[in-house]
Amino acid sequence: MTDLVTFGETMALFAARRTGPLRFARDFDLGFGGAESNVAIGVRRLGHTAAWLGRLGADEFGDLIWSALAGEGVDVRAVRDPDAPTGLMIKGRRTADLIDVRYYRKDSAGSRLSAADLDSGLIGSARVLHVSAITPALSASAREAVRHAIAVARSSEALVSLDVNFRRALWTPEEAGEWLRETVGDVDVLFATEAEGRLIADAEGPAELAKALAAYGPRHVLVKLGAQGALELSDGVVRRAEPYQVTEVDAVGAGDAFAAGWLADWLAGAEPEQRLSTACAAGAFAVTSQGDWESLPRRADLDLLGRPADGVQR
Amino acid sequence: MTDLVTFGETMALFAARRTGPLRFARDFDLGFGGAESNVAIGVRRLGHTAAWLGRLGADEFGDLIWSALAGEGVDVRAVRDPDAPTGLMIKGRRTADLIDVRYYRKDSAGSRLSAADLDSGLIGSARVLHVSAITPALSASAREAVRHAIAVARSSEALVSLDVNFRRALWTPEEAGEWLRETVGDVDVLFATEAEGRLIADAEGPAELAKALAAYGPRHVLVKLGAQGALELSDGVVRRAEPYQVTEVDAVGAGDAFAAGWLADWLAGAEPEQRLSTACAAGAFAVTSQGDWESLPRRADLDLLGRPADGVQR
Amino acid sequence: MTDLVTFGETMALFAARRTGPLRFARDFDLGFGGAESNVAIGVRRLGHTAAWLGRLGADEFGDLIWSALAGEGVDVRAVRDPDAPTGLMIKGRRTADLIDVRYYRKDSAGSRLSAADLDSGLIGSARVLHVSAITPALSASAREAVRHAIAVARSSEALVSLDVNFRRALWTPEEAGEWLRETVGDVDVLFATEAEGRLIADAEGPAELAKALAAYGPRHVLVKLGAQGALELSDGVVRRAEPYQVTEVDAVGAGDAFAAGWLADWLAGAEPEQRLSTACAAGAFAVTSQGDWESLPRRADLDLLGRPADGVQR
Amino acid sequence: MTDLVTFGETMALFAARRTGPLRFARDFDLGFGGAESNVAIGVRRLGHTAAWLGRLGADEFGDLIWSALAGEGVDVRAVRDPDAPTGLMIKGRRTADLIDVRYYRKDSAGSRLSAADLDSGLIGSARVLHVSAITPALSASAREAVRHAIAVARSSEALVSLDVNFRRALWTPEEAGEWLRETVGDVDVLFATEAEGRLIADAEGPAELAKALAAYGPRHVLVKLGAQGALELSDGVVRRAEPYQVTEVDAVGAGDAFAAGWLADWLAGAEPEQRLSTACAAGAFAVTSQGDWESLPRRADLDLLGRPADGVQR
Amino acid sequence: MTDLVTFGETMALFAARRTGPLRFARDFDLGFGGAESNVAIGVRRLGHTAAWLGRLGADEFGDLIWSALAGEGVDVRAVRDPDAPTGLMIKGRRTADLIDVRYYRKDSAGSRLSAADLDSGLIGSARVLHVSAITPALSASAREAVRHAIAVARSSEALVSLDVNFRRALWTPEEAGEWLRETVGDVDVLFATEAEGRLIADAEGPAELAKALAAYGPRHVLVKLGAQGALELSDGVVRRAEPYQVTEVDAVGAGDAFAAGWLADWLAGAEPEQRLSTACAAGAFAVTSQGDWESLPRRADLDLLGRPADGVQR
Amino acid sequence: MTDLVTFGETMALFAARRTGPLRFARDFDLGFGGAESNVAIGVRRLGHTAAWLGRLGADEFGDLIWSALAGEGVDVRAVRDPDAPTGLMIKGRRTADLIDVRYYRKDSAGSRLSAADLDSGLIGSARVLHVSAITPALSASAREAVRHAIAVARSSEALVSLDVNFRRALWTPEEAGEWLRETVGDVDVLFATEAEGRLIADAEGPAELAKALAAYGPRHVLVKLGAQGALELSDGVVRRAEPYQVTEVDAVGAGDAFAAGWLADWLAGAEPEQRLSTACAAGAFAVTSQGDWESLPRRADLDLLGRPADGVQR
Repeated sequence: MTDLVTFGETMALFAARRTGPLRFARDFDLGFGGAESNVAIGVRRLGHTAAWLGRLGADEFGDLIWSALAGEGVDVRAVRDPDAPTGLMIKGRRTADLIDVRYYRKDSAGSRLSAADLDSGLIGSARVLHVSAITPALSASAREAVRHAIAVARSSEALVSLDVNFRRALWTPEEAGEWLRETVGDVDVLFATEAEGRLIADAEGPAELAKALAAYGPRHVLVKLGAQGALELSDGVVRRAEPYQVTEVDAVGAGDAFAAGWLADWLAGAEPEQRLSTACAAGAFAVTSQGDWESLPRRADLDLLGRPADGVQR
Repeated sequence: MTDLVTFGETMALFAARRTGPLRFARDFDLGFGGAESNVAIGVRRLGHTAAWLGRLGADEFGDLIWSALAGEGVDVRAVRDPDAPTGLMIKGRRTADLIDVRYYRKDSAGSRLSAADLDSGLIGSARVLHVSAITPALSASAREAVRHAIAVARSSEALVSLDVNFRRALWTPEEAGEWLRETVGDVDVLFATEAEGRLIADAEGPAELAKALAAYGPRHVLVKLGAQGALELSDGVVRRAEPYQVTEVDAVGAGDAFAAGWLADWLAGAEPEQRLSTACAAGAFAVTSQGDWESLPRRADLDLLGRPADGVQR
Repeated sequence: MTDLVTFGETMALFAARRTGPLRFARDFDLGFGGAESNVAIGVRRLGHTAAWLGRLGADEFGDLIWSALAGEGVDVRAVRDPDAPTGLMIKGRRTADLIDVRYYRKDSAGSRLSAADLDSGLIGSARVLHVSAITPALSASAREAVRHAIAVARSSEALVSLDVNFRRALWTPEEAGEWLRETVGDVDVLFATEAEGRLIADAEGPAELAKALAAYGPRHVLVKLGAQGALELSDGVVRRAEPYQVTEVDAVGAGDAFAAGWLADWLAGAEPEQRLSTACAAGAFAVTSQGDWESLPRRADLDLLGRPADGVQR
Repeated sequence: MTDLVTFGETMALFAARRTGPLRFARDFDLGFGGAESNVAIGVRRLGHTAAWLGRLGADEFGDLIWSALAGEGVDVRAVRDPDAPTGLMIKGRRTADLIDVRYYRKDSAGSRLSAADLDSGLIGSARVLHVSAITPALSASAREAVRHAIAVARSSEALVSLDVNFRRALWTPEEAGEWLRETVGDVDVLFATEAEGRLIADAEGPAELAKALAAYGPRHVLVKLGAQGALELSDGVVRRAEPYQVTEVDAVGAGDAFAAGWLADWLAGAEPEQRLSTACAAGAFAVTSQGDWESLPRRADLDLLGRPADGVQR
Repeated sequence: MTDLVTFGETMALFAARRTGPLRFARDFDLGFGGAESNVAIGVRRLGHTAAWLGRLGADEFGDLIWSALAGEGVDVRAVRDPDAPTGLMIKGRRTADLIDVRYYRKDSAGSRLSAADLDSGLIGSARVLHVSAITPALSASAREAVRHAIAVARSSEALVSLDVNFRRALWTPEEAGEWLRETVGDVDVLFATEAEGRLIADAEGPAELAKALAAYGPRHVLVKLGAQGALELSDGVVRRAEPYQVTEVDAVGAGDAFAAGWLADWLAGAEPEQRLSTACAAGAFAVTSQGDWESLPRRADLDLLGRPADGVQR
Repeated sequence: MTDLVTFGETMALFAARRTGPLRFARDFDLGFGGAESNVAIGVRRLGHTAAWLGRLGADEFGDLIWSALAGEGVDVRAVRDPDAPTGLMIKGRRTADLIDVRYYRKDSAGSRLSAADLDSGLIGSARVLHVSAITPALSASAREAVRHAIAVARSSEALVSLDVNFRRALWTPEEAGEWLRETVGDVDVLFATEAEGRLIADAEGPAELAKALAAYGPRHVLVKLGAQGALELSDGVVRRAEPYQVTEVDAVGAGDAFAAGWLADWLAGAEPEQRLSTACAAGAFAVTSQGDWESLPRRADLDLLGRPADGVQR
């Protein structure tokens, strides 16, 4: 049995070292990333078991992803596709404050995910199923895989968690909104930024938005407010968390860290206030160093957020 | 016919990757830079044609500069000097906030520029001639080249633009002041910081300074105020632009971007308010990423200055 | 009018800095490459004009390729595709002696090339049309583009040059052989390795192979023999060239350099012996430094192949 | 049950990028290495299961090693020592042909290994126990751990394999010789270079040496001859393997690859000739790219040793 | 004769280039550091002579340290230990604001320092002896060396300076406090942060703390307050200095720079206000660029702290 | 008193990391080099004292050179020129086998060296004065400095050593030949390649050439034959040394190492055969790693040339 099961597309990642237009970037670091595998790593680091399902190419990038996830203690159950390559993304920093991500994922192994690739037994035995709204935008078979997994999880009374993660490169706001409205009724936890929430429902202000979203069904609605912290509506109660003051190094992965923090504390049976605070702390911590997932915190790391100013640890 | 013609010395550039004294810098990136060719690239990226004239060594650095400028769509009309090398500069960051530039340009190909190297027909057919007060400080022949080019442009009723760009390593404030006072009467547009403006005229405050400078002849006087934005005096009207709030990565090239923004909008026939705003936006954008010219904006980039805070574009 | 026109897919290139499995490579350099644009650069460096046609994404990689080709003096006439990205390749070194290239070119802008993208007037005015058998393997429209271009060139009596450049990732040997046998009758110059020649015709030994290939129509058949030099059959005469002894740094691009050397000397009206020798020298020179095209020689560089042993030039 | 169990000290590794005295090296890559974990990875890549036991510091380097080994599919059973750091090594290249390795392993976690850290049940259930003569040189408790493990393996009739791996920095030839002579009678397979074999027995030539070593008890004696290949004496039969011709990039790890190749084929039940050939091929392959273990081959990689000369795979 | 003599352990330093957990850092720069040798360099750069005594391994890292210190003009009088390696430290940046340093110094050459290694004549002829409370925590012999050196300096009426530099990795607060309370009566100048001061005496607020520390004997007590500047109690007079506003790049070495600034001005006979101001300026300057000691200022550098905002020096 | 005194121009050095045309090199390492300071370092490493005189800019590059030479134990007596920069060189690798060096030394501090900059007392007290024929080509004052130094050395009966080091960028073969023929009569030891020897005298074969050179006066003539070793004519006796077989990494500095080896053994009173052998070994060792001077051997390093083939030292 695994605490959390998740699936989706994880891709190789070329990250530019230099700030400015990508065509002048010259040096790149090879890594990888994927919203759902980030959550799996995050939950694992915070003390729970996690499994990641997906489809990887039978290539070096697939090996890289498999090894790194397994090395993080995630139970990897990926199909290796001999006919399609592992997807790729290029991450640059257009300016100091604007990260720019391009994808080479068309007909990638990951986008060819189907319900048949998913181990229903594993999903059925998990306490949490976490999905993102990236997967349904990849292909018809991937969309069906999400539908199928949610159905399995619901029948086993697992907590169903959905992070919107809207990707403009994959579908339009209208397409995303339509799918989300169809799906969110089967979801227990919904993670969204304000803009993402408005793909589903229209409301003024985060609290009203959360209520409008909860009306679709989710018992827990988490609205991420960036520099303004976050807001949670759970069982009709609104809680608001203040943001942590941190020096941002790399904003990518903050949302995944937030979801991982929340889900880890849900798994641990923490109180709602603590759970929301852990989510915010995890999200804050993740931006203080480089990497989509490398920066995800362990429990002990969360204490570093409040350290004294001299900043040298010996 | 070309919208803008400019000329001057463009040099190879070794930029240190590490902050601190240059002797500890270890790793350097090879690039190039030159105030006037920066303006040519900037105007080109903002939608107009531009030609750059100058003298380059018949060496690899000369090839590097020629290829990169031509690759940016600038019409390169450079003489290749078999007897003198392309000049060189070394750019370090003495502290987080202090960039330090050293030159190896003595007897360089660029400093041997003369009036004979300039295609008068090309200058005579341009709508704008842009020069800097670096060139007259390089050599007697280069000074004569500037005089000659301005005379040609005036006779063809081109707009004559001058950016002071005072370089302490090349001449004294007194020498610069004398040349500027002799020349500025033949100029239509003058770009200067406050300190540079005071090389020519003495006045309290930017507005008064602009008036004192305009008294020498220029129809348009632009006073760059750094973190306080900029001020323009055109046809007797003073306009002031607020600065953009950006995270600075590399301040070099901001002045060239400002000039490029202003001249591009003049070429486009924009309203004075728009023109000054574009100049400020271009200058602000140029500091948000690395490189003297790599960071110069295209029209679409200027919209990125006002993006929302999450800073991830997918 | 242009001496040589060529077209095909040119892609961004991430090259690993470390020898070994790609998943451990960590650092990559961004560049680009494409067999046909390599030939265009090579011919340009050897003193002739060249134009490259193709399709590039409306993205940073497309900008990178355009700027670099234009900077090399190649006349770039590329369509920018707003709906498809510029293709990508990843180049690693599996062992010291084995380079490994992977492609992300499916549905790329370059693979969507069609006859309508080609400027028939430009092709019709050129002295040489050079194509590779990569292009017909990209898509039906690209295959039609090759057919169309050859037809235009033949009607204007341009020299039609074809380099086989067999790519296993794109089609099978049978598919390639079929297309080649259909096409080679319309070709004046054929470049092939022995293995590539056998896709078309079966014969023992390079001389017999060349004759078998010439029987399909080409007036000039060039068989590249790697460490054994090369063999040419022109107008019934077989000539053989000895290889140059060089220290190999990067073998990619050697074949393109060979073709460029041969075509440049054909354009210059050189004697057959000289032409073949230049082709071999260009191919040899290209392997002595890094990069698919950066290493292509200028005329003066070819003299460096026979320099004395101390190897320091001051 | 696991095919092979091994244990020993695995350390973080700083590898200099530049050839020359370490004090001028400037840039280093972080990795890790250890003779026994290299063998575990090697056997795993060749298709069998493997477990690695040891002691790691409760620090980032310990995490690095754990994650990477687990990511390679090795079953990691390491004790985390809160009181001692993970050992460290520095690897430079004094000249093109001379690798120089320094250790910071005194009182490291790994050197504090004891019999109590080893899971006797796991060892007892394995088909092969592989140890090196590095471990007994680390500390008294580590020496006892080796003695204990061999005893467990013998009682369960596992194959006991020992690679001499003499380390001058840890003990003298006399100390090593004494321990080896005491131990080798309990060993089934002995791996040694000629110089290492002479620590135990004195004989002229590799065949005579192998016989002298076999007289101490091992059923299989493997004498590694570097550029002259290798020699095996098994059940009284001498077999000799010719070396593979490869371009050497990094010689470290070749011996571990050889052992892994031999043991993997023993596990697979291969014929003696095949087994020795696989050992040589694995050793040869490992030197063709960078890294102590990154370069270890998979089965399919071994075919690359005989590829044709053009060296580009697409 | 030398103005300042100091001694202690100086170690090789691997500094990670990437922010985040050390296990993902990949690239490291090799350098070195040591609190006391930092002070020696700092005092030397500010115009006085300085000698550094210590013990270094007979290895490349020892050579590196010797050459760099000698190259900075420090009189190096180090014993080379053939039996123990030069110590090592690893410096990472856990988050943007938190530097993390690990040591490999157990049984290092430096920790084996003893009184016999120190040239008493040199100490006896110096105007200042500077020590840190790192040395007594290294070993019994090192502790005795400190005691001995202080006794020699007191007998020759040199100024005895002690910087607490508490290192949690080496001893407990209680152990440190005990040694400090025993020693501080023999000290003329005491440098401490507030937290370090409280290892010795308990008091509210920095001024009260300074008085409590002065009660133990030191004529000059310097309390470093980080972002709040510093406070000095000298001969009963409390002086407070405001901090400089600088952009922090690397906080390591700031305390050493502060001590060097204060001691250099004491050597120069500066007024107390000036002396404290120089100490603060040196500390501030040292954080504006990379490196433990590379960033230490010369006199002229201190003027750069108040430069105008454009930040480009040509 | 110093064993060897030398002087000349030492320059900062930007060395490209990538093989190929310099314009594509991108990354450079900062270092420094100079034929005479290389010899000073070489002699110092081989056990003798050495002083280097010269002129350096009052800039970061001058500081870099001073610190590094002093750190190597060379007695640096350089004038710092406030009005001229330290010279610069750019070192690339055009192909695997061809190093390409460009200079920015016109009107550099080093080229402004004059007799007045030299400490005649120091020269007069040395056992060896070593000069190169680079210095007279720098300027009239530098040429006079060489003449003056040789005169001082002759009057004190120091050994006068001259290495031709012909630099095509500084003067013609005819100019060099004229100066050499005028000077060589005052020289005791002459170092030259065959091509350099022919600038002075014409003769077939190295032995005949050595005799022709000795006829001009030098008691010791050393003809460096690259891959064929070297030949010495001393007191009428011809000795020939075979080359060492080494893997070449960087050929620059080999000649300086050869001179340093010969002079160090002369200073040590070694037998002629030994002296020539040491010269060859030092030259061979210097090419086995990177850097102009970093690769110079110590006595112990020379033993590494004959190490066994496995190439791993632990």
